Amino acid sequence: MASFTFRRQLTIEWGQCDPAGIVFNSRFFEMFDTSTWMLFEAALGVKPRELAKTFGIIGIPLVDARANFLSPAKFGDVVEIASRVAEFRRSSFEVEHKLTIGGNLAVDGVETRVWAARDKANPEKLGAVAIPADVVAKFG
Amino acid sequence: MASFTFRRQLTIEWGQCDPAGIVFNSRFFEMFDTSTWMLFEAALGVKPRELAKTFGIIGIPLVDARANFLSPAKFGDVVEIASRVAEFRRSSFEVEHKLTIGGNLAVDGVETRVWAARDKANPEKLGAVAIPADVVAKFG
Amino acid sequence: MASFTFRRQLTIEWGQCDPAGIVFNSRFFEMFDTSTWMLFEAALGVKPRELAKTFGIIGIPLVDARANFLSPAKFGDVVEIASRVAEFRRSSFEVEHKLTIGGNLAVDGVETRVWAARDKANPEKLGAVAIPADVVAKFG
Amino acid sequence: MASFTFRRQLTIEWGQCDPAGIVFNSRFFEMFDTSTWMLFEAALGVKPRELAKTFGIIGIPLVDARANFLSPAKFGDVVEIASRVAEFRRSSFEVEHKLTIGGNLAVDGVETRVWAARDKANPEKLGAVAIPADVVAKFG
Repeated sequence: MASFTFRRQLTIEWGQCDPAGIVFNSRFFEMFDTSTWMLFEAALGVKPRELAKTFGIIGIPLVDARANFLSPAKFGDVVEIASRVAEFRRSSFEVEHKLTIGGNLAVDGVETRVWAARDKANPEKLGAVAIPADVVAKFG
Repeated sequence: MASFTFRRQLTIEWGQCDPAGIVFNSRFFEMFDTSTWMLFEAALGVKPRELAKTFGIIGIPLVDARANFLSPAKFGDVVEIASRVAEFRRSSFEVEHKLTIGGNLAVDGVETRVWAARDKANPEKLGAVAIPADVVAKFG
Repeated sequence: MASFTFRRQLTIEWGQCDPAGIVFNSRFFEMFDTSTWMLFEAALGVKPRELAKTFGIIGIPLVDARANFLSPAKFGDVVEIASRVAEFRRSSFEVEHKLTIGGNLAVDGVETRVWAARDKANPEKLGAVAIPADVVAKFG
Repeated sequence: MASFTFRRQLTIEWGQCDPAGIVFNSRFFEMFDTSTWMLFEAALGVKPRELAKTFGIIGIPLVDARANFLSPAKFGDVVEIASRVAEFRRSSFEVEHKLTIGGNLAVDGVETRVWAARDKANPEKLGAVAIPADVVAKFG
């Protein structure tokens, strides 16, 4: 389990909330995506838009996302999102996002992503490739 | 298992796609939310904005959402979303969304929602209440 | 003035509305962008994702957008958007979008876009180029 | 002209960008809306969600929004948005938003909003009411 954790604080915006006055679910997935980019930048010291080129990949596409909505976040709430890679496998990994409000867990999210590159024999084909050991080490 | 299925077709919009030219993940959760409202309207014959009042509830809030992204949807792709309640429990239910492109499953989503009402003794409190049998029957 | 008009109907979605229960302003600009793509497809008979290649351009980027919000659109409202090119200039054009609810104008939008291509001498540079007369004619 | 200016910095997110790799236009209107709330909080010392109650209004609804897109903002760009009330009229006002990248103006936005309250004689009716002089003074 990788212990490197990236934390950021956000204030919930009017446009992120629905007629119930709470954050519309899709907005949490936007927040998690951004937190993943920021986590990788913090751990690897590489700007998000340099990530692909730096590692010879096409990116870290999302293959699965899920979130458990425990309590609502409302307009003006200050939330903290703590993100870390919960598990690295050979060519995929799980990013865990804990969104808290005043210390209480409000949304519990998990993304599964792959370390994806073009096939050397067939550049039209994309596929998951082994995550370099030195990348994994940076999250340790 | 409820067999009533609601299907709709959408054409992927420019503004739903990210720099990789494919639908950004949060957009699928927007589509699923709307499909759930449309599924309930189709099954129950009640306009979405009349749903709460008609059944004396405050709504059908989402408590869990997840999606498996099997293949990308691109700008201009015509997609079909088939949605149905996969399971009704006492006060919660699972809505399953299958998004296909040309008949091939591209995104597989599941939402868990609750049938929520104000507590009669304490109207400040919200909670899951039993789903009426006649509601469940309409999805049969 | 081009008279070719593209009309579509939409039902306002929960996720498009804010805590005031009405469509959040940015969502209208999403709708207008999509209506412009659909207007061009309808007028020219070219799929949006083939537009650039078909005409040797890089696209029709937006340089100005504005909207006047006359009355709110609410969750579940059925709206109609009527879109047409209000004016073609040498290399730019105005797209006018009238969003009505039950026949009453609710939002009045205008986009200014350019017909943009790479500079032949310097492909790194983009610029507005003359709109072909046969393109203009199709909107007449 | 009110000189009180609110500035904030943002880093452009992946999910805010379209297939051209640049911020999709509607996202700028989201940013401007949030900047207006933050400007009012900074000038008046009132939390956005307390604004209506504090001043006995229903809010500051948007009646007109426009933006001029001078140069694109890309994924990872650090942008600054400087916002101020460019003009207060009796019951409406203009908020000007200048989005710069590295000091260069990229998007120039203007919102027209009204100071709106319920009609005392007919609470079903909403309307623009006079902006209190002490509110205006805080932006001086």
